[in-house]
Order: sequence, then C-alpha cells, then structure tokens
Amino acid sequence: MAGKSPGSAGSTQAGEGGRHATERGRKTLEGLSINLATTRQQWGFRDAVEGCLRHGIRAIAPWRDQLAAIGVAEAARIVRDEGLRVTGLCRGGFFPAADAAGRQAAIDDNHRAIEDAAALGADCLVLVTGGLPPGSRDLAGARTMVADGVAAILPLARAARVPLALEPLHPMYAADRSCLNTLAQALDLCDALDPARTGAIGIAFDVYHCWWDPQLEAQLLRAGPQRLLAHHICDWLVPTRDLLTDRGMMGDGVIDLKGVRRIVEAAGFSGPQEVEIFSAGNWWKKSGDEVLEVCVERFLELCRSGHAVASPP
Amino acid sequence: MAGKSPGSAGSTQAGEGGRHATERGRKTLEGLSINLATTRQQWGFRDAVEGCLRHGIRAIAPWRDQLAAIGVAEAARIVRDEGLRVTGLCRGGFFPAADAAGRQAAIDDNHRAIEDAAALGADCLVLVTGGLPPGSRDLAGARTMVADGVAAILPLARAARVPLALEPLHPMYAADRSCLNTLAQALDLCDALDPARTGAIGIAFDVYHCWWDPQLEAQLLRAGPQRLLAHHICDWLVPTRDLLTDRGMMGDGVIDLKGVRRIVEAAGFSGPQEVEIFSAGNWWKKSGDEVLEVCVERFLELCRSGHAVASPP
Repeated sequence: MAGKSPGSAGSTQAGEGGRHATERGRKTLEGLSINLATTRQQWGFRDAVEGCLRHGIRAIAPWRDQLAAIGVAEAARIVRDEGLRVTGLCRGGFFPAADAAGRQAAIDDNHRAIEDAAALGADCLVLVTGGLPPGSRDLAGARTMVADGVAAILPLARAARVPLALEPLHPMYAADRSCLNTLAQALDLCDALDPARTGAIGIAFDVYHCWWDPQLEAQLLRAGPQRLLAHHICDWLVPTRDLLTDRGMMGDGVIDLKGVRRIVEAAGFSGPQEVEIFSAGNWWKKSGDEVLEVCVERFLELCRSGHAVASPP
Repeated sequence: MAGKSPGSAGSTQAGEGGRHATERGRKTLEGLSINLATTRQQWGFRDAVEGCLRHGIRAIAPWRDQLAAIGVAEAARIVRDEGLRVTGLCRGGFFPAADAAGRQAAIDDNHRAIEDAAALGADCLVLVTGGLPPGSRDLAGARTMVADGVAAILPLARAARVPLALEPLHPMYAADRSCLNTLAQALDLCDALDPARTGAIGIAFDVYHCWWDPQLEAQLLRAGPQRLLAHHICDWLVPTRDLLTDRGMMGDGVIDLKGVRRIVEAAGFSGPQEVEIFSAGNWWKKSGDEVLEVCVERFLELCRSGHAVASPP
C-alpha cells in the first residue's frame, strides 16, 4: 500500500480525482466509514483499503471472509500502518441451531470473531443473531437461543474489550437471518445482559432495518451513548426488487437520512456513518472508485447533521 | 348460481369431490373464509363464490374491483341468496396524498367503500392505510395523514354500522403501501379514536404481516374482542422471492399457525380464519378448485386450535 501512488488503480485523471478527494477528505470526511460489503464484488480487503484512501476515507468495516482471504494479522497490520478506524467487524452471531452441538459451534465461532475484532482494534463486533433453526417454527425458542448465545460470549468480549453490537435486522429477515427485529427488542436484551450499561454490549443501528419503526426516536434515545455503537446508512428503494441485495445509495430512496442522523446525535452517538450497500443489480456492477465517489457526494450532501464527529472511544 | 350442479365447473370426478367437500364443509368448515385475492387470477366474484360453495366454504372476503366488475347490488344479492358470511371488504385506506385535494379524494373513496361494505353486510371494512406520498420522506407526516383520514371516515362508518379494521402491514411495505406497521401502532390509533372501545374501529390481524413481532401475543391480548375484527392467514416462505406476490400456502412456510390461532382465540376472536394468498409464481397459476382444495386441507390440518368458531356478531 505504502509507496503506491494514489492513482495506481486508474488513469491519471482518476489519480488526480483521488488526490483531490484525499485533500477534501482530510477536511470533511471524518464522519464517513465504508462497510466493505459495499464493494465486495469489486475489491478484496487490500484493494478496498487503497480505494478508500484514494477517496479520503479513513474508516472501514470489513467482513470476516475478507479478513480470512488476506489473513487477520496482515489486515491488522494494514489497519495499523494506515491509521484506519475500524467502525465494526462484520459479523458474529447466528446462534440458533437445531442441537446443542450446533449452538456450541456458533459460540466457538463467535469467540474467534471477538479475537479478530480485537486484533483489528474494531469499535465493535456486529452481531447478526440468526433466525429459525432449519425446520423450526419456534420463533420464541430461537430468540431464547440468541439471548443464551450472546450471554455466553459476553465474558470473552468484555475481557478482550470488544463491545458487542446487536444489529436488529428488518422483520423480513426474521426467519432466515435475524429473529432480533426491533431496536426495543435489542435494547431489552442489552438491559438483561448488562444492566449497569458498561458499554460491553449495545446496538448497531442500521437505517435500512429500522427506518420504518414507529419507536425509532424513542428507542435511539433510550439507547444513549453507552448502547449506540454504530450507525449504518444506505437507502430503502421503492420498489425494492430483492429482499437481500437491492439496497439503495443514500438519496435514491425514501429514508430521511439527515433527520435520522440528528436523532442519532441527540442520542449521544457522533461516530462515523458507515455505508453498507448490498446491490447486486446496480452498485456491485460499477467500479469501486465510482461507488466510493458517489458515497462521498451523497454523504456530504444528504447525511450530515452539521455537527462535528467524535473521535474513537 | 342456484340451479347449477356442484360439479358444473369440472368433471364428474371433480363434481363428486365438490359434493364431498360440501358435505365435509357443513360439519367442519365453519371457521374458514376465502379472501378472493387468493383466486383473483382465476375467478371473478361470481365464479369464486361458486368455487367456495363447491368446497363447503361459506365465508368470503371480496375486493372492491371484483365487486365493481359485477356490480355491488348483484354481489350483495348473491351474498344474501347464498347466506354467505363476508368476513371483510378489501379495501379502504390509502389516505396520505401530496395535497389536500388528494386527501379529500381518498376520504370520498373511503365513504363509498363503507357503503359497499354495508351493502354486503361485511363484518368490517379492511383499511390499508397507504404509505408515503410521492416524493416524500416524511414518515411521521404520512402517519398523521392516516390518523386524520381514519378520523374523518369514522362517523360514517359508525352510522353505517361498518367496523373499520386497520390492517398493520409488514414493515417492508412502509414506503409504498402502509405506514401502519405494527399491532401496537394500530391499537394506539384505535385508542385515540375510540377510547370507549365501542367496536367501531379495530384491527385486521394478518399473520403474514405480524408473525415476526416480538409483541404479537401482548398486543393481540391488548386488542381483545372489541378490537380484533379479522384473522387473515397464509404463510411466510423461505426464501421469499418477491415482496408482494410470494406469499405461501399454510404449512409451506415458517409461521406457527396453530399457536397463533390459540393466541387469537385467547384474545377473544373466534371468527373465521380468512385465507389471503398473493402468489404470482405458484397458486395464481393453478386452477381455483385446486387452490381451494389445498386451502381446506391445510386449514383443517394446521390452523385450527380445536375450539368452536363463533357466529357473526
């Protein structure tokens, strides 16, 4: 990474654009992080970091398969050398399973995820809890398995100083990805497991999953700075053509991103906004540099409240 | 309708199957209603009624376009002559609009829907509230428009003795179909508009929209017999391939239909379960008789609590 010119991935023009973006970034992009799922079809970890740096973005959130491809130690070295902020590691979770062995395997895997997050110095480990075990219709039972699983990994997370960020997912994923579906439900679990609000467990708030919630403001305020660990952004498209991979770029949908950010900041979180877009039909088909360029533009235009962004905790 | 043999739509074998189903229906199908969207690609109002009668089903829920095609007076005559129960008329609602004229037009249309529901003697008029006006990102504003719209039509509904059934829709429809997305939100609106719980306004509970809700049981019990006006069933498929038209037949998905029915009855509603399936890729492609045959089988096997079903109020 060091020694490569900013424009190494593109033409001279792109390189100049990159340098321009970097200059701008030093002044104005402190509040922006890129979840590397946003360019997962274009770039692995190393290329994505280079891309972010070209555009003045110095915060990222990688996925574990991206770390595995390069090795966690090497990824951690790049993060350290470049002085990057890691706003989250995606992801732990998926606790429900059909039998005890499966549930223990999930706990073991989450322990490894905590170690990876610690190695990266990540702000948090994002937990997508998992849905129903195969063949099950017992949603309450799955939710109990989630509570038990999170409780089981919390001691290691505390010891490793890796906050666990429960991510409530949109109810359309209740069966197959997350039986944790509202902010209230996630915060109830936080209260049960960490009544002292130590910061060891909180929530990753993603506008895509929660924008519809009539309790959005009340629950974000309830979360407060101790529980609000991440703020993910993208947009809800109308129509949405696929349940999983048709998320929109900020501004292309119906979410009042600036208004939501004001609530998030009022609740006490002023860390970066992390762009996480799964888009098989659109953004995953464009060049990574084009995606990041639009992310920066839309972030600057549509997502900021106007207040300053806090440093990492 | 009268004078036609039960098998008039099919072969002798189908006719015998129809008579058999009718015999069975007289004993056991009291708790089953068919929302005519389930066979909307196969049948208009008249054919759908004939189909239901062939299978021993004596409760239906039509849509307004199906009434319009045959005329409301003729539809009401058929309902009366056959002694059918109408478990709901679909649908009023869609209150939010970009300007006052649009909102007034919605109110006027809802007044006509109330008159249609009264003509049919329907148990309720189902209200799908509508989402964001075109170009709007103001979800709270849309919700206010819904509250105002429902308040505006409630006097006529009371006068016509047509209970209004607010149907909370799955959060994936918050933008374009319904900004009313949870049972709690619907019941809060009922409480605001009818604190005396007169029965003039309540909810249509559809398992498809609400099965994921962590507050499902608490809110159904809160609704009680005064507020629980309809119970719609189908199933949530995994994977779900389309947000609108990929609902599953009971038993083909992940919803614990028998368990949910027990809660519904504990809450005080023992009226029919109304099958409402939008299925462009599957059930809309089959013959109407095949669809109804499977509806009956699955209803008998998977959906009943074991208790008796109440007569219309």
